[in-house]
Amino acid sequence: MLRTHTCGELRLSNKEREVTLCGWVQKSRDLGGMTFIDMRDRYGITQLVFNMETNAGLCNKARKIGREYVICSTGIVNERSNKNLNIPTGEIEIEVKEFKVLNESEVPPFTIEEKTDGGEELRMKFRYLDLRRKPVKKNIILRYEMAREVRKYLDSKDFIEVETPALIKSTPEGARDFVVPSRLKAGEFYALPQSPQTFKQLLMISGFDKYFQLVKCFRDEDFRADRQPEFTQIDCEMSFVERNDILETFEGLAKHLFLEIKDFDYTDAFPRLLYSEAIEKYGTDKPDTRFEMLIQDITELAKGKGFKVFDSVEYIGGICVKGGAGYSRKELDTLTDFVRKPQIGAAGLIYVKLNNDGTVKSSVDKFFNEEELKKWASNMDGKNGDLLLVLAGERKKTLYALSKLRLEMGEKLKLIDKNTFAPLWIVDFPLLEWDDETHRYHAMHHPFTSAIMDDHHLFVTDPGKIRANAYDLVINGVEIGGGSIRIHDKQEQAEMFRLLGFSDEEAEKQFGFLMNAFKYGAPPHGGIAFGFDRWVALFGGSDSIRDYIAFPKNTAGRDVMIDTPSVLSDEQLRELSLKVVNK
Amino acid sequence: MLRTHTCGELRLSNKEREVTLCGWVQKSRDLGGMTFIDMRDRYGITQLVFNMETNAGLCNKARKIGREYVICSTGIVNERSNKNLNIPTGEIEIEVKEFKVLNESEVPPFTIEEKTDGGEELRMKFRYLDLRRKPVKKNIILRYEMAREVRKYLDSKDFIEVETPALIKSTPEGARDFVVPSRLKAGEFYALPQSPQTFKQLLMISGFDKYFQLVKCFRDEDFRADRQPEFTQIDCEMSFVERNDILETFEGLAKHLFLEIKDFDYTDAFPRLLYSEAIEKYGTDKPDTRFEMLIQDITELAKGKGFKVFDSVEYIGGICVKGGAGYSRKELDTLTDFVRKPQIGAAGLIYVKLNNDGTVKSSVDKFFNEEELKKWASNMDGKNGDLLLVLAGERKKTLYALSKLRLEMGEKLKLIDKNTFAPLWIVDFPLLEWDDETHRYHAMHHPFTSAIMDDHHLFVTDPGKIRANAYDLVINGVEIGGGSIRIHDKQEQAEMFRLLGFSDEEAEKQFGFLMNAFKYGAPPHGGIAFGFDRWVALFGGSDSIRDYIAFPKNTAGRDVMIDTPSVLSDEQLRELSLKVVNK
Repeated sequence: MLRTHTCGELRLSNKEREVTLCGWVQKSRDLGGMTFIDMRDRYGITQLVFNMETNAGLCNKARKIGREYVICSTGIVNERSNKNLNIPTGEIEIEVKEFKVLNESEVPPFTIEEKTDGGEELRMKFRYLDLRRKPVKKNIILRYEMAREVRKYLDSKDFIEVETPALIKSTPEGARDFVVPSRLKAGEFYALPQSPQTFKQLLMISGFDKYFQLVKCFRDEDFRADRQPEFTQIDCEMSFVERNDILETFEGLAKHLFLEIKDFDYTDAFPRLLYSEAIEKYGTDKPDTRFEMLIQDITELAKGKGFKVFDSVEYIGGICVKGGAGYSRKELDTLTDFVRKPQIGAAGLIYVKLNNDGTVKSSVDKFFNEEELKKWASNMDGKNGDLLLVLAGERKKTLYALSKLRLEMGEKLKLIDKNTFAPLWIVDFPLLEWDDETHRYHAMHHPFTSAIMDDHHLFVTDPGKIRANAYDLVINGVEIGGGSIRIHDKQEQAEMFRLLGFSDEEAEKQFGFLMNAFKYGAPPHGGIAFGFDRWVALFGGSDSIRDYIAFPKNTAGRDVMIDTPSVLSDEQLRELSLKVVNK
Repeated sequence: MLRTHTCGELRLSNKEREVTLCGWVQKSRDLGGMTFIDMRDRYGITQLVFNMETNAGLCNKARKIGREYVICSTGIVNERSNKNLNIPTGEIEIEVKEFKVLNESEVPPFTIEEKTDGGEELRMKFRYLDLRRKPVKKNIILRYEMAREVRKYLDSKDFIEVETPALIKSTPEGARDFVVPSRLKAGEFYALPQSPQTFKQLLMISGFDKYFQLVKCFRDEDFRADRQPEFTQIDCEMSFVERNDILETFEGLAKHLFLEIKDFDYTDAFPRLLYSEAIEKYGTDKPDTRFEMLIQDITELAKGKGFKVFDSVEYIGGICVKGGAGYSRKELDTLTDFVRKPQIGAAGLIYVKLNNDGTVKSSVDKFFNEEELKKWASNMDGKNGDLLLVLAGERKKTLYALSKLRLEMGEKLKLIDKNTFAPLWIVDFPLLEWDDETHRYHAMHHPFTSAIMDDHHLFVTDPGKIRANAYDLVINGVEIGGGSIRIHDKQEQAEMFRLLGFSDEEAEKQFGFLMNAFKYGAPPHGGIAFGFDRWVALFGGSDSIRDYIAFPKNTAGRDVMIDTPSVLSDEQLRELSLKVVNK
């Protein structure tokens, strides 16, 4: 090695030792007779010292080097007179005897500091420089440590990591596949996997019993802030299990990560909430349970009292803002604007102030008397001094708007402890969703999800009511993962495909290999897949998964650093028997 | 869990315990009043016993189930009267009190046994059944264990696994890229990586210091027996290193795997052989050093003695077969046929028998007298009783043919100990290869490989003679991995691109981001990449990497199980702005 130590490891105990360090110039300062250089590598920062009096030549040489130069310095570890106790190496410095420039650097296009002056676009183009910044580097290291701990835990539970293929078959179902033209077989294509779902099920049929894989998956969708064309899943499957076995196993994984990565010792069982309850109480299947403020249904109380806005709607519900009775007109207007945003979608906001003196003031005083409003309050656990916020409309949409209003109020009132984690399982999702456009059912999870045993009779009578044996892990309002107990019976699988509008031929063409496999002894099995990027982002304290990917694509799916996608040569297209045409 | 134990864990110490096991029916035997079923899962096989006398109903039910049925059985652990000491569970059996069929199975298309009656094609189509067979399952588990140990070792050495992108940019250089059309950007394409080479170099420039990744790579070539369109690399890179640091670090990895996986304690330093020596002594840069039989150059001795075949050639060399003087005419003819095969390419074989009585008999007695032939013998370390085999021709081709002849003789004479490992490093490869077709140099490793410092003057005078600072790890004649110290200076990199015939524009277009990155403080760095599939195959004792991949493609690049590649719908093609045309 060109060095004897890293820039993060020297301490007072190394005093008087001769060492050689390599790294980048973070900054340098000339203070009269002394020059100080902060030298950086992956492991930390160490201060170098050059003394004009004792070695003017070396000191002058040091004064010429700029930021981000790569240097190699040999010297003696000294105790600092001016200690910096904010960094582990802050008690020592290196009195340099000799140094050389390993490589020069032009002035970087933005500062390589904790907080940089570079804009998003510029930092993406020079991602390799942005990765030098401590907050970005830390994210990538966090990602590695989480991956390592995932593997350690699953290995300890007898799981085996098996690589499934990346060049698979395109299925017209679901979100869009990326495809890969075959050169050997003109006109034919592979597809990149959106998930290794069918392969992990085949591995269960093969008897692998407990499988996992940290695996790249691909989805050619419009890329929102938290989506990337390529993303990483922690993909898992187990045989001879019931739902509870899976929840316990992966609750164990989450607890292991809480403890090892966040030093957060969560010992209780994770709460389990029915999908229907989650929607009713939080308006969403991804509730942030770090604070209460549950949604209350007051449809029965408020409907049919002569207020037209309410009388015509399916659902009326609200939340109780503790201590909010004093909200000003302006504050209430801001909240009304909030719920009326197109992405929230409410028509308006009704408020009821439960004043401290026991009086009630609302925006619907004309239609409801105090007694009626106090019934709302009692129903919504409103006390004197609280504020009730009520929305009305189509049930699903109104609950959605209430879920957003609840989060907004949680943020506003600082009810959300950013330093805690509130995990829970959501269970008993609907198996099917009716799609008005195509006039048929879609699988809410995927077509391999089994129904809850008690609901099997509904296949004929009322498929929309069937509950799936499916579950999601939600932490702090973020869906971290989801899975299900799978169908392992070929009849049931065929029935499901029929329900989803597949002809027998289509089912055979797309999933024939799986249906075939079911003939030869498929064990009962189930699994789960976690969005690894999102889990890392959650632990890192950010909403954007992009910050946790070494070389991400932008929201247009473009890697601006290497400038791709890009055009192919005519020769390459000819080799692939392809021609680019207009849409 | 549906079970209390696996089929691999019960022992005599569990005697009299009530247990529930799940698994597949391996086989069943009716012996008069008793029925025995061998039940299999990932962990082992356990014998179930049904007694006609004590429970005729259950026994009759058991007699109806076939091979590969999935069953769940509850019973008592008993000591066997007839112990099978070949399996860990062979001292006990389960006296079944209750069992149910979890899933039925049709008769599988081939037997699920150690040795099967199924042909290659059939087993590929039903890969999920082939994976149930012990030798195949074992391979996949070996692969997992190796991956786990690779990660464990590299983590202990402070390496960080970083995921690099799978959707990158196509480069016309080198073997062929798989490409991925972009839907959002009509007419543009991503490419799948042949290796993450440039990304790992960027990570060094970012200061990640020690990187690794077990990563899928892709190459659209004609797929020979040991090639797959997708394969897995152990990709590694380090900063602030010299060659020796890399060799020592990864020699450590190989020794860790030898010890943990093969229980083979290799404590010596791996031999290091110059590329030029490897070619001279073994005829190949992938020598199998488990046996000697080195090639000797006798050009000086044998040329210019009036034997026209020799006088016109560049090179004459041979090997000495110990104790081979007694070879019959027929055996020698077989060897002649061997070297004449098109894939070996020699014109003929010359032999010299050094008889036990001190006389010499050769196929060139007319042209060389005994004294001359004895000089050959002395040069080739031939003793009485030995046989010299000599080839002549163009140097490179003849050495290649000799390397194949050496291996053939090693096999034939059983000189190769299949239970040992002979690792070595090959170093100092040529940097460039002249290509007669394109009339320019090609990079032997890749264009980012640095030259050995002493050879820098040859860039101008004789580029073909420059030695690269590159190295391969070879074990038992198999190239397991290779790497180099990289160029980290932008001038040197530009010079290299020019030498390889890139115009400055082409270099900029393809590798501009890397050249640009070199401007901002690139550290000295180097790395290595191992062919993981091949390493697993070597440890598993097979030549074919396909046996160590859960779902491999066949030699036509096709997955016959899922039947891909396949055609896309017109709608999908339209979405991608593509049309399939004839070549």
